[in-house]
Amino acid sequence: MTVYLVGAGPGDPGLITARGLELVRSCDVLVYDRLVSEDLVGEAPSDAIRIGRERLDQHEINTLLVGHGELGLNVVRLKGGDPFVFGRGGEEALALAEADVSFEVVPGVSSLSAVPAAAGIPVTHRGVSSQVTIANAQGELDFAALARSGGTLVLFMGLARLPEIAHGLVVHGLDPQTPAAVISAGTTPDEEVAVATLGTITEAAADLRSPGLIVVGDVVALSERLAADRGTLALA
Amino acid sequence: MTVYLVGAGPGDPGLITARGLELVRSCDVLVYDRLVSEDLVGEAPSDAIRIGRERLDQHEINTLLVGHGELGLNVVRLKGGDPFVFGRGGEEALALAEADVSFEVVPGVSSLSAVPAAAGIPVTHRGVSSQVTIANAQGELDFAALARSGGTLVLFMGLARLPEIAHGLVVHGLDPQTPAAVISAGTTPDEEVAVATLGTITEAAADLRSPGLIVVGDVVALSERLAADRGTLALA
Repeated sequence: MTVYLVGAGPGDPGLITARGLELVRSCDVLVYDRLVSEDLVGEAPSDAIRIGRERLDQHEINTLLVGHGELGLNVVRLKGGDPFVFGRGGEEALALAEADVSFEVVPGVSSLSAVPAAAGIPVTHRGVSSQVTIANAQGELDFAALARSGGTLVLFMGLARLPEIAHGLVVHGLDPQTPAAVISAGTTPDEEVAVATLGTITEAAADLRSPGLIVVGDVVALSERLAADRGTLALA
Repeated sequence: MTVYLVGAGPGDPGLITARGLELVRSCDVLVYDRLVSEDLVGEAPSDAIRIGRERLDQHEINTLLVGHGELGLNVVRLKGGDPFVFGRGGEEALALAEADVSFEVVPGVSSLSAVPAAAGIPVTHRGVSSQVTIANAQGELDFAALARSGGTLVLFMGLARLPEIAHGLVVHGLDPQTPAAVISAGTTPDEEVAVATLGTITEAAADLRSPGLIVVGDVVALSERLAADRGTLALA
């Protein structure tokens, strides 16, 4: 009799948490995002109500979660990545809190480190980077602050703006030779990776499709030694 | 016949990934960090070799992973949080790659968002913050760059330096009224939370014990409306 805001992880269905999977398997209602794996949606009980959110805006989702929660149903709101990292989980949690509906946040593996990891890139590495700045490239980006941050940069949802981003970072002081990568559909069978430099990444990633994660910084150079073929992970 | 570098998550044993738990349950050798939950260590097969890493330095760990990997054993290296977020997973992966031992990184839920979430703090929130900078406070901190970053700050392992950190951020331009929190042992039964401002957090967190995560930014103020009592999560 709670609404669970559950992170589904970065794409690979094996990367949901044990707790999250348990909740999906016992829910009455499953509300899921477009990018959530079909395998995970299929883990809900056969008589569970399944609601894909394509046609719903954020306000409608909030209303739906509150409504089903007030009916006393076990509701799982399954979101890509982590609910509180560019997931709008905070907005849904606030709506539930205001309606006095009990809720619990079950964190998920965020793309921010899992997607670079799949391409052999550790976002931190001793002697290379001990700082990471993550930003949502659908909003306004402060290129001057990003260029000065001194650590790894991880930009979400920026593939469509890649030329502007690479240019903006160089104009504000980053070396065009700085290693840069784009990972499209990371941790899924459709994963594609482009590794280059800030000066050449736009051309190198020209054929990649959204969703893409942009990673900038010296850690990207480690991918040459750490990238490995891997398949997707099956649910136990 | 692979070495798996597996993220155990932030503390709560239910927050390991489904894939990670499956690997722990079928390993020949389990090498685990001090902060990994005993419940997870207990999930390894009864005849598995269990190696706590307290007495081993990083070089010894690397040697041990390579050695067991070369024997053709299934080795799980279980690390707190995510292996590639301040986890030194990159160093272990490089040692394995150089020795030509096959390995796979299985990402975990990082404390960076899960621990604030447990205290009702979303590290991003529309209209409040669309950027997060995470840093390891055991290394050198560039307070000027951190203060200018413009988003949420998440500092790992900084509790012992809290007075210096709060002072450094204010000296470099952050308002002393900026909301700030410390979460100690987040997502475990020993979790303790202090919510205050940069000006008052040192006093408010005086009784908290390491490991502590420091969160600075306007998103911290959401905790008043989002914090909820929650227990720990059991493994299914």
